Amino acid sequence: VAEDRHITNIQVGLGCDRNCAACARFFDCTSPLKADLYKAPALRKIQKRLADIKYKIAILSGKGGVGKSTVTVNLAGALVLRGAKVGILDSDFYGPSIPTMTGVRGKRMSLTEDERGMLPVVNNQGIKVASVGATIEEAAYVTWMGDELRWGLYSFLGNTIWGELDFLLIDLPPGTGEETTNVMKAVQDLDGAIMITIPSDISQVVVGRCITLCQKGEAPILGVIENMGTMHCPSCTKSIDVFSTGGGKVVCEKTGVPYLGSIPLDSKVCDASDEGIPFVIKYPELEASKIFMGIAREIAVKIGYLKGG
Amino acid sequence: VAEDRHITNIQVGLGCDRNCAACARFFDCTSPLKADLYKAPALRKIQKRLADIKYKIAILSGKGGVGKSTVTVNLAGALVLRGAKVGILDSDFYGPSIPTMTGVRGKRMSLTEDERGMLPVVNNQGIKVASVGATIEEAAYVTWMGDELRWGLYSFLGNTIWGELDFLLIDLPPGTGEETTNVMKAVQDLDGAIMITIPSDISQVVVGRCITLCQKGEAPILGVIENMGTMHCPSCTKSIDVFSTGGGKVVCEKTGVPYLGSIPLDSKVCDASDEGIPFVIKYPELEASKIFMGIAREIAVKIGYLKGG
Repeated sequence: VAEDRHITNIQVGLGCDRNCAACARFFDCTSPLKADLYKAPALRKIQKRLADIKYKIAILSGKGGVGKSTVTVNLAGALVLRGAKVGILDSDFYGPSIPTMTGVRGKRMSLTEDERGMLPVVNNQGIKVASVGATIEEAAYVTWMGDELRWGLYSFLGNTIWGELDFLLIDLPPGTGEETTNVMKAVQDLDGAIMITIPSDISQVVVGRCITLCQKGEAPILGVIENMGTMHCPSCTKSIDVFSTGGGKVVCEKTGVPYLGSIPLDSKVCDASDEGIPFVIKYPELEASKIFMGIAREIAVKIGYLKGG
Repeated sequence: VAEDRHITNIQVGLGCDRNCAACARFFDCTSPLKADLYKAPALRKIQKRLADIKYKIAILSGKGGVGKSTVTVNLAGALVLRGAKVGILDSDFYGPSIPTMTGVRGKRMSLTEDERGMLPVVNNQGIKVASVGATIEEAAYVTWMGDELRWGLYSFLGNTIWGELDFLLIDLPPGTGEETTNVMKAVQDLDGAIMITIPSDISQVVVGRCITLCQKGEAPILGVIENMGTMHCPSCTKSIDVFSTGGGKVVCEKTGVPYLGSIPLDSKVCDASDEGIPFVIKYPELEASKIFMGIAREIAVKIGYLKGG
């Protein structure tokens, strides 16, 4: 039967090797065989594990270092403050920073009693965290090569037992490369995607790629959050545009994607990350926190968790 | 003969599949066969293309967004100011930012007359730039999958004709993953490696991985540059530690790697990047520029281009 499928697929001109998970044309493929071929046991298991989670939201950035993990952790914090049960999947296998930012650095994911699954680590705010950084020593030098990385990810997604969750926030790897697409292939029914950028021109270019990726992956785009926006001097309160200004709004106007707001740059945001507490919880009085709580509310309304108005 | 080698290698317990370029254990492998097996035509071509370059320096960071490309461009600018012929290889295939930062955005690498090679783009300061961003439309959504990425890189390294160069600065992909190791495997005789970090705790963890990678790849470590250090308010001149403080020095003390200095965070640095001019050239009077010129001098001395003292 497998041989027949292969022949059929070659006959329809796809040059298919029946390895959908690794295929660069996955999102472009319209073969009626894709659905069947893609139902490998590892992927079926992932679908099953994630089936009961109400809302799955991916957080993307076109480049690293724009605060994608910071936004993820604070969105989790903001949703917890509104009574939601929240989990974070840290899908960065090379530089996982979620354990530090949620204050679970050094804690380890544990096996279930029947040894058939892994349990996320739970932080002080009740946020469940699954991260490769909570399975190995952080200083360990890990190079995941090609398929190893994909299977590592699939194993992670398929074996983590989340329990009851309203939200699973998926902190995607930076960029729009293979790692990111692998996650989007594995979690096929995302409820929303949020894109993070900084105001400068250089970061603008990459948002377009994120949009294309979301469209291909059929992830509804909730909007763009600009991070590291206009800061205020702690001494004289004057405005400082460290990373330029207004880029997030400009890219939204150009592309028609909703603009969710701009989070001001603030050293307290960085301090809170280092201390492992969402800044919206540690410093609720901060301008950044007030703006962020508004953004989180808008996201919760858009996705249907909260009623708008 | 090939079969014999395979058998020999299996016999010595390496489980070798004779595909050194893709092997996760490349840097750990001590097989006497590695040198032979690794001499694939593509890699021989790269060695030949890079043979006449006096100094090859890799710029690494454990995570994205710490200013690795900014440092690369300004090191190029600083060396040009000292009379050196400098090229930059942008080895980031997903988010190449060197074309924007060097002011050659929109320009394209051209084929040589015999169509056997590609010529780098030359910027206003005479810096030669090779980047995948100077070969395709920047908004293009490119997903390089697995081997495609490695062969893309090898083709790039093997087909770019640099001409006479004192320095080739290699802006490595962020992180210490497969992409980064691929470049270090291809450019085997690096003269030095520079690591970039920001002051905060979260970025510290990853420097250790960079050091391990440099040791495995036999790249002499020139030192760590801390970027986005203490800034001064443009209005009241008071200090602001946006991304915490002192982390670069701490990681150097812990690891014994030389500390090269801290570049203050400054909105002019970001402006210069967006305008495509190294800040050391556009704003020579800036504190960041003076500090950076000192760091560049130290690097030039360490590597033997300038005499110390």
